[in-house]
Amino acid sequence: MTTKLKLPSRRFIKPSFQSLIEKKRDGQEFSQEEIRHIIDSTLDDEMPIHQLSALLMAIYFKQMSAVETAILTEEMMLSGEVVDLSKISRPKVDLYSTGGVGDKTALVLVPLAMAAGVVVPMMCGVESDYVISTLDKLAAFPGFKRTLSLDAFAAQLAKVGGAVVAQDPKLAPADAKFHELRKETGTIPSLPLITGSVLSKKLAEGAESLVIDIKWGNGSFIRELEPAKQLARTMTRVGRSLKRRCVAMVTDMNQPIGDSVGTMLEVREAIELLKGNGTDDMKELILRLGMEIVRLAGVAGSTLSAKQAVQRHLADGSALQKLKELVKAQGGDASLVDNPEKFQQAKHIRKLPAPKRGYVHMINASLITRGVCVLGGGVIKAGDKIDYSVGVSGIKKVGTQVKQGEPLMMIHYNDEAKLEAALGYFKEAYRLAPKRPTPPPLVVERVA
Amino acid sequence: MTTKLKLPSRRFIKPSFQSLIEKKRDGQEFSQEEIRHIIDSTLDDEMPIHQLSALLMAIYFKQMSAVETAILTEEMMLSGEVVDLSKISRPKVDLYSTGGVGDKTALVLVPLAMAAGVVVPMMCGVESDYVISTLDKLAAFPGFKRTLSLDAFAAQLAKVGGAVVAQDPKLAPADAKFHELRKETGTIPSLPLITGSVLSKKLAEGAESLVIDIKWGNGSFIRELEPAKQLARTMTRVGRSLKRRCVAMVTDMNQPIGDSVGTMLEVREAIELLKGNGTDDMKELILRLGMEIVRLAGVAGSTLSAKQAVQRHLADGSALQKLKELVKAQGGDASLVDNPEKFQQAKHIRKLPAPKRGYVHMINASLITRGVCVLGGGVIKAGDKIDYSVGVSGIKKVGTQVKQGEPLMMIHYNDEAKLEAALGYFKEAYRLAPKRPTPPPLVVERVA
Repeated sequence: MTTKLKLPSRRFIKPSFQSLIEKKRDGQEFSQEEIRHIIDSTLDDEMPIHQLSALLMAIYFKQMSAVETAILTEEMMLSGEVVDLSKISRPKVDLYSTGGVGDKTALVLVPLAMAAGVVVPMMCGVESDYVISTLDKLAAFPGFKRTLSLDAFAAQLAKVGGAVVAQDPKLAPADAKFHELRKETGTIPSLPLITGSVLSKKLAEGAESLVIDIKWGNGSFIRELEPAKQLARTMTRVGRSLKRRCVAMVTDMNQPIGDSVGTMLEVREAIELLKGNGTDDMKELILRLGMEIVRLAGVAGSTLSAKQAVQRHLADGSALQKLKELVKAQGGDASLVDNPEKFQQAKHIRKLPAPKRGYVHMINASLITRGVCVLGGGVIKAGDKIDYSVGVSGIKKVGTQVKQGEPLMMIHYNDEAKLEAALGYFKEAYRLAPKRPTPPPLVVERVA
Repeated sequence: MTTKLKLPSRRFIKPSFQSLIEKKRDGQEFSQEEIRHIIDSTLDDEMPIHQLSALLMAIYFKQMSAVETAILTEEMMLSGEVVDLSKISRPKVDLYSTGGVGDKTALVLVPLAMAAGVVVPMMCGVESDYVISTLDKLAAFPGFKRTLSLDAFAAQLAKVGGAVVAQDPKLAPADAKFHELRKETGTIPSLPLITGSVLSKKLAEGAESLVIDIKWGNGSFIRELEPAKQLARTMTRVGRSLKRRCVAMVTDMNQPIGDSVGTMLEVREAIELLKGNGTDDMKELILRLGMEIVRLAGVAGSTLSAKQAVQRHLADGSALQKLKELVKAQGGDASLVDNPEKFQQAKHIRKLPAPKRGYVHMINASLITRGVCVLGGGVIKAGDKIDYSVGVSGIKKVGTQVKQGEPLMMIHYNDEAKLEAALGYFKEAYRLAPKRPTPPPLVVERVA
């Protein structure tokens, strides 16, 4: 018996790239076929990069609708391999943060989620300049492997319930091409392009749900609150339309999160947080985001039980135990979790003295990261080797009262010349004022 | 004796191309050094074309100020050779038109200006799709040479007072690179980029003054009136700031100008116009633009004497005589000017019948050109050989009353299959209505 194939009633005539650029330039909406054509042509290098660059700039100015963005995301996801975690029956939730200064949230939340029985398949994407990635931080554990084959990734998830690795180039390869061009053409800040880039990779990792932390402020690449809110809304909407449960938080990034910046120092702070210690802002962020994870995973139903679950896994040491398992699974020296003083230390520590008495009025977080990178603690240009021992700790947060000469923070360094260069950034980062300021709320908005 | 060189007080640190893109993306103004850097880097292929394309799109959306546009124009002009006509003492005026359907103005105005003692150094630029250029029209004279060396160009100007040749690639080469990218990236309609492109080439030709005809409507690449007015203002302002006298007219292009479209047919119409015959719209356009030429050249002072000069050179046959001299100087068969019936004729002529009685309400001019190009009378893709004999004549203009079956125009064709394809465009171009329409004014605005 033969079956008649049903042919599509309308054949898609491939438009010229020029006409596609003009369409977006004039603010019109792309069809699914058009977006697929753009992605396919990008993948096989048929679309010249100068035309793609012009298109990206037109998208920057004219945006994409939620429907277009969802199609873009899905087509980018489908441009490469998609990790199949269907053999793992436990709930699979991933985290995404736009990235912030001193943000060690993932270092705490991944093991915390694992302790709650949630599988976390995390790949860390290409980072922007002057951001210290979660992966760079974990690499402070000697021996920690940044990459795993997709099979090893899935196997580790099945075995220990979590993995944090570098973005696999086989996932969403169209995005890699987009991203490279976006960096060079000033189109990184486009909300639909950010959404497509982030979600296509996150969805390809095999997570069913996603908790998103959109940071706004001087330490985020999103400087203003309004676009941060828009991004939160776009991402959750697009995620939902692609059948993933998503919750997004818009959080403050107008000063470093926690009290340290630098790979090893942040790992040590994370270990303290996993023991229930730490600054109020980090504790609040972990509680809020952790509650979202366990609720999305279905581990906890009510707000109260979610809160209790997070607090229990911190209090009973099970989350800390999971950090050890994760580090060990990826070849790192997990014994350092119990003996953090054995991490390689910087040769020198000195204070950054307050130039006058007053209240910490503002800390330009991105200048802090720049200073730490100058000390050697981050990647300034591709190929830079990271000095895991350097950074800053004991950061006096906004609203703290200080006397003249009192330390605003402690600088961990190995090289006097680099310290001199970094000091300029650190000094410029702090603003003191006679009156106590009102810091903005940590969590501005929750979008579900 | 040694003299101390005065060094510039502030050294220009070359910004990254990415930061230049971001600057324009954010609506900021470029400095002279920055624009020069962009042009220099374009010329020596240092600026990657994908970054230049993104920059062009950012300029499309964020515009350039009059100052920026003047700098762009000057830097583009200085990117190549500049024709030196200083040995010619007579006034040198050039014409620029954005191009229109059936527009044979240049065919009439160049010899008319020559007759008035004005030197016209005209180079015809790269044309947009579906526009029949002045040069294509002159090539209907067998033997007519489209290109001259710059020396031969200057020599012909000194000898006969006029030359119409293809754009010399040695003039404003930076613009050629810009233009090629603009075509492929949907950034042709950017007003500052149009201004820079047109004026850089026109100024490099050696003209002291420029008469500009900006056409708006369905037969122009500028569809709306407002951007046409803006372009007229931008061009005259930029031209003036570069020490050239400029007058711009904004004119109607919502139906073909004159009553024929097609190379040879338009040449024949131009010959009639040089004898003082022709349609009202062409006669008015020639009078208005011709008066601007003789006034800018200083040949006539008052409006009245300018008008009389134009009318005299048409009436006494001196303008027609100059067309012969021009054609002959460039190797064309000038005897055809006196015997236009000897031009190669199309094999067939048939009418386009009015489908019903009524008034011609609208003629979509660009559809007429498309039809003529389909007949073989224009370039659709690079390398197409033009059939000079085909086209349409006797076009019934907007406001004309027609009976059913009466000809809306006559179609000159050589190939039945091409006729069939072209008929679709011609039929679609005409709209008849029961009431007499009020056509828009021919000259909308004069900017000096």
